[in-house]
Amino acid sequence: MSVTAPAGFRAAGVTAGLKPSGKPDVALVVNDGPLDAAAAVYTSNRCKAHPVLWSERASADGHVGAVVLNSGGANCFTGPEGFQTTHATAELVGELTGCGAGDVVVCSTGLIGVQFSRERLLAGVRAAHAQLDAEGGSVAATAIMTTDTVPKQAVARKTGFTVGGMAKGAGMLAPGLATMLVVVTTDAVAEPADLDRALRAATRTTFDRVDSDGCTSTNDTVVLLASGASGVTPPAAELDAAVHEVCAQLARMLVADAEGAEHDIAVEVVGAASEADAVEVGRSVARNNLFKAAVFGRDPNWGRVLAAVGTTSAAFDPQELDVTLNGVPVCVGGAPGADPAAVDLAPREVRVLIDLHAGTQEATVWTNDLTHAYVHENSAYST
Amino acid sequence: MSVTAPAGFRAAGVTAGLKPSGKPDVALVVNDGPLDAAAAVYTSNRCKAHPVLWSERASADGHVGAVVLNSGGANCFTGPEGFQTTHATAELVGELTGCGAGDVVVCSTGLIGVQFSRERLLAGVRAAHAQLDAEGGSVAATAIMTTDTVPKQAVARKTGFTVGGMAKGAGMLAPGLATMLVVVTTDAVAEPADLDRALRAATRTTFDRVDSDGCTSTNDTVVLLASGASGVTPPAAELDAAVHEVCAQLARMLVADAEGAEHDIAVEVVGAASEADAVEVGRSVARNNLFKAAVFGRDPNWGRVLAAVGTTSAAFDPQELDVTLNGVPVCVGGAPGADPAAVDLAPREVRVLIDLHAGTQEATVWTNDLTHAYVHENSAYST
Repeated sequence: MSVTAPAGFRAAGVTAGLKPSGKPDVALVVNDGPLDAAAAVYTSNRCKAHPVLWSERASADGHVGAVVLNSGGANCFTGPEGFQTTHATAELVGELTGCGAGDVVVCSTGLIGVQFSRERLLAGVRAAHAQLDAEGGSVAATAIMTTDTVPKQAVARKTGFTVGGMAKGAGMLAPGLATMLVVVTTDAVAEPADLDRALRAATRTTFDRVDSDGCTSTNDTVVLLASGASGVTPPAAELDAAVHEVCAQLARMLVADAEGAEHDIAVEVVGAASEADAVEVGRSVARNNLFKAAVFGRDPNWGRVLAAVGTTSAAFDPQELDVTLNGVPVCVGGAPGADPAAVDLAPREVRVLIDLHAGTQEATVWTNDLTHAYVHENSAYST
Repeated sequence: MSVTAPAGFRAAGVTAGLKPSGKPDVALVVNDGPLDAAAAVYTSNRCKAHPVLWSERASADGHVGAVVLNSGGANCFTGPEGFQTTHATAELVGELTGCGAGDVVVCSTGLIGVQFSRERLLAGVRAAHAQLDAEGGSVAATAIMTTDTVPKQAVARKTGFTVGGMAKGAGMLAPGLATMLVVVTTDAVAEPADLDRALRAATRTTFDRVDSDGCTSTNDTVVLLASGASGVTPPAAELDAAVHEVCAQLARMLVADAEGAEHDIAVEVVGAASEADAVEVGRSVARNNLFKAAVFGRDPNWGRVLAAVGTTSAAFDPQELDVTLNGVPVCVGGAPGADPAAVDLAPREVRVLIDLHAGTQEATVWTNDLTHAYVHENSAYST
């Protein structure tokens, strides 16, 4: 269901032959209206892929008629030929759907610096258009997978309207988004400004707080489309909450399917002087390879948590820091607390609670452990 | 030889029983003068270990009579008991050597948050003092090893004076120094201010540009001692060059012995608008797990280099970036260049050359690949 759960959307996914594996690699999502309101956020990476550079302009006016996505190549650092591929793709989708190239968002994912076949992609777009279906959300979600092991879909049904979404992403997850493509749809009646507010608020505390491996992709895109087909104009708070719910579900799925991960780690920072401090501390721990490797080894090595905290500029006194691992207060007041041997790191979900004792703000950053499988997958991806 | 290569120094290394392995774990380096001039730099981590907090004060006046080092425990986040251990150690060394506790630098390395036996450490200090020897540099270098596979020593013999050094460090190598203890000695006649200048200049472009795994330790210490026993007062440039030479050798040895590494990677950034830009770009690439895993897999995945460059605030235009891997210009002007298949990543040393085309400044940051052995070693270190 996912992106086709709300009324007014059709989707499709096909095999265009961009992936050597022969798996589906082109997806199309079309907004049949009556509205074509939209909002989008893109990677913070300054080396943006061609489809991101294109889509930033296409979505800037708050109107998007269709989103076309391909796996099998990121189309980044591919020179003028790569940009022409993106442009030709948007032109074709605009022509087929009647919305015009300027209202087409293009998303690509895969290897950077590799040209893929424009002919195959365009043929795939034609095939996808021919297969557009109001039940096509799931097959579209499958066609955008790269190293994902499962398609990622979420739906929130509210009073009179629905929000649905699909996501792909399993590595390069980092702030400013991940190698992550997300399409969220709703049949609510909403202005582009409403969607922009809802999407930015949701991504700030969901996708932006997933930091699987500290790497920021060149292609990250999250786009929210509203068809208005429900005829219902929800209150702002209700729309915001529904969009947040879908984004939070998808973000959690990204963590759960991160490359090679054996643990999902919630780094919860409380007692911070500011939310920014809490996020900085959480992200620092989430990016610490030594700590992440320790979790993989089920080693409650809280010293590595504190060593990471110490690299931040957050307000705290080292002698007042508390660290609790899965409920066991292993460090209290900057000194050894309960016996770390009591910490059970066998479950998939690990909760690291850090109290800075410097204020009342808090934030949670999600990450994964650093495993042999992560190294294996990322040392063998393109070869 | 190492720290005892210059005249005026004695050293020793003994087994005190702090390490479960029964390997040597306490080292002592004593400056017999006639001078006791010194300079030191410490970790930038805000969670500093007790010995760092102590030594910062001990070395602040530019006079150090002895350095005592233990492996087998970092003595960090160990509460008042841990601080008393450091204090008692300095008191004992000051008493035995006659230099006074306030001129004793204390260094510890090992697990954070674990108390070790003060009695064993003090007994080890007595034993080390009894074995002090003008040829004791090598055994001292061995006693400070943790996960190091080889002791690290370097000597620079100049006109009339000598600089020698020892280092330990194999993981947690990062800016603001590493889990890295370094003692550098010289028999040159020099004022504390001269030593401070020479040491800061040397560490800025050597140890501070080693970033093995992005993690900054709580215990890093680099101390430079001058005995003046040669009677030679070298020109500032000559002293600076000799100190730099020894630091550069030791830094290179740290990279070569980094935990589980199969490749030593030099990230050379040229054409930068400023040296700070060059260092920021170099460090960003050096910390990118995806790129580091690719090097382990001998995969010339230059897209990951550019994705890392894109996360920095350095001056550059993405469409002008060049990347050369081991001499092969795989990316030219932000587009695919020579065939990456021509890149040979079999040799231990890998050179990544990034031209930002934004100026004339440059810098090189050293790192290692991300390997199964790194994950294994760091997931099993304390358990």
